[in-house]
Amino acid sequence: MTFIRRCIFPCNKYIQKCQNSFIIRKYSNKSEQSELIPSASEAAWPRRVVSGLQPTGTLHIGNYFGAVRRCVRLQDSGDDLMLFIADLHSLTTHQDPDSLHANTLELTAYLLASGVDPERSIMFVQSSVARHAELCWLLACLATNARLAHLPQYKEKSAKMKEVPIGLLLYPVLQAADVLVYRGTHVPVGIDQLQHLQVAAQLVRTFHHRYGRVFPTPQAILSGDGSERLRSLRDPTKKMSKSDSDPKSRILLSDPDSVIELKVRKAVTDFTPQVTFDPESRPGVSNLVMLHCLAEDKLPEEAVEEAEGLTTAQYKRVVASALCSAIRPVRERAARLLERPAVLRDVLRLGAARARVRADEVYEDVATRLGLSATVLADTARAAARRR
Amino acid sequence: MTFIRRCIFPCNKYIQKCQNSFIIRKYSNKSEQSELIPSASEAAWPRRVVSGLQPTGTLHIGNYFGAVRRCVRLQDSGDDLMLFIADLHSLTTHQDPDSLHANTLELTAYLLASGVDPERSIMFVQSSVARHAELCWLLACLATNARLAHLPQYKEKSAKMKEVPIGLLLYPVLQAADVLVYRGTHVPVGIDQLQHLQVAAQLVRTFHHRYGRVFPTPQAILSGDGSERLRSLRDPTKKMSKSDSDPKSRILLSDPDSVIELKVRKAVTDFTPQVTFDPESRPGVSNLVMLHCLAEDKLPEEAVEEAEGLTTAQYKRVVASALCSAIRPVRERAARLLERPAVLRDVLRLGAARARVRADEVYEDVATRLGLSATVLADTARAAARRR
Repeated sequence: MTFIRRCIFPCNKYIQKCQNSFIIRKYSNKSEQSELIPSASEAAWPRRVVSGLQPTGTLHIGNYFGAVRRCVRLQDSGDDLMLFIADLHSLTTHQDPDSLHANTLELTAYLLASGVDPERSIMFVQSSVARHAELCWLLACLATNARLAHLPQYKEKSAKMKEVPIGLLLYPVLQAADVLVYRGTHVPVGIDQLQHLQVAAQLVRTFHHRYGRVFPTPQAILSGDGSERLRSLRDPTKKMSKSDSDPKSRILLSDPDSVIELKVRKAVTDFTPQVTFDPESRPGVSNLVMLHCLAEDKLPEEAVEEAEGLTTAQYKRVVASALCSAIRPVRERAARLLERPAVLRDVLRLGAARARVRADEVYEDVATRLGLSATVLADTARAAARRR
Repeated sequence: MTFIRRCIFPCNKYIQKCQNSFIIRKYSNKSEQSELIPSASEAAWPRRVVSGLQPTGTLHIGNYFGAVRRCVRLQDSGDDLMLFIADLHSLTTHQDPDSLHANTLELTAYLLASGVDPERSIMFVQSSVARHAELCWLLACLATNARLAHLPQYKEKSAKMKEVPIGLLLYPVLQAADVLVYRGTHVPVGIDQLQHLQVAAQLVRTFHHRYGRVFPTPQAILSGDGSERLRSLRDPTKKMSKSDSDPKSRILLSDPDSVIELKVRKAVTDFTPQVTFDPESRPGVSNLVMLHCLAEDKLPEEAVEEAEGLTTAQYKRVVASALCSAIRPVRERAARLLERPAVLRDVLRLGAARARVRADEVYEDVATRLGLSATVLADTARAAARRR
């Protein structure tokens, strides 16, 4: 249990802040996730998981294990999953139009290849459902500048920019809209996104106070598998990141076996040959253990036991092989899907149509409560049906 | 001509700033308007006038003469006019939902009663066309915080608030979206809105620079009739305003004749009985002259000549009578229209449908240039037609 606790609670100050508004529950099985569970008044809303991924380039294995696979497992355990490609969010930093379009299709292929089932789940592109942006404006009239400007992610990102677009300040408001427009009850997030979820919770409270109860308060589902803590293969003191200048620092979901093997072989460790799990003092080796665990759904204790008698160099071959086995089928399915872009577009078109029906229902309720005339006037299918 | 110049250019520092990006042309007929005319490269865009009015209570005569009647005259002179009820903008300050809904219908009635022709012009509610909010997000990714936070209107409004919503900072970006989403070329504005139009011009430049020419640079049409400079009837040193706590300070478009007469009779002037036009030293009497001019389409010289030999008290009766004659038909038509809310809703529904067709066309172009997949995916009528 030590490992699980460590991974769930890497950063106690965040959790402590969250405990003001959430209660944290822990599970005890292997694929466990910790959840911030709703209070009694929230229980009335049907459970619905909403998650988004930015189309900003091929996923690395941290994204895959930490976000995609988590979503697929929630779907497979029976959750009502809405998974969107967050192209509107990605525009807060400059995107090359051709790449953005290509990345959207590529991400669609990888999501399907990872097991997202477009029949059971609703998968779509954010910009194809107008209600996200529409609700974002309504929420922007309730969200305070001061609160948004003090969020750590905003401070960090804006500090690197010469000219800060207001879209960056508005980012968590659009995130709140993404979830609330479907009355999402649960959001799989990383620890660094918890504060954004608190912005959403605050907006729900403000909205309720002024206009009545329309939204559930979305709850975080925190990963318990350590995927968020994957380190750079070149410098294990840093997180594995899409934006690292050294491509050898991360393993991409599109990497062929030979590249995976090479990157693992070149992974920086230390001068102790034995394999142990101690992220503080041996981050490099522990990172290999973590990759092994994620690839084969193991606990670190099990992985370390398996590695007994192996040198770090020998263990790297075990890890690379485990990763290749986990990633190869996804990569191969994605490659086949990418040969059929018309199919990918159809999947997204169907998803958008289904998402719009849900979003229309919620938005019309919201608009009516605000006194907007949209409900009366909008030519949505629902409105047309009501008029008949 | 002195009067016209005075009214067009009450504030030279604004105009000077504008001259960096605009050229100002003046006309010489009576109902003259000064226009910031396009450079050669802008001439390719077909002329289209876009204007919005907030549904925040009954219009006063300043709004009527300064905004509504101006739009109607542009329509009647053959302009392609898009006139919307800016309910999304009104939400940047708290609105009672029932009032907002009622005000929307009332404004619709007054616009129709004032001569807006829903066949020739497109009249609709902002929130019923999703593309406004959608384009607002896209532009928010290009607009800088710093620029928006330095706009005088933002500073003034936010200074009065305990908690400033980000919607207030975003206000000029939504205004830009309102115009650009229809490729509006001309916007009738007051002097205090010129800087917001400059934000739109800046966004057009940034957009062009990154993604190519998609939008015309919207040009201001400034009123030349002095309607913007109407003073409070109770304190002629202040502007006539919707938000003044004393209802006798303004004349509403819904005021019956007896109330108009009373308000004009009680209007604060000075102790000189003659009627002259000198806004600086005799603001109260000059304000009466201005009302007279607006009601009967006169120049101040003509009004003053007509008032020769009358005391201020006698002249007030002339002004009240002129105002009653100008306003009575509008008020009576509006009252009849308000008895038929279903007709008003139909007008707005038709307007929204027509506006959506135009907005879809522009937004799809914009989305394609940004690399968003909306064009491919959106189930708009156009997209469906293209697929067939």
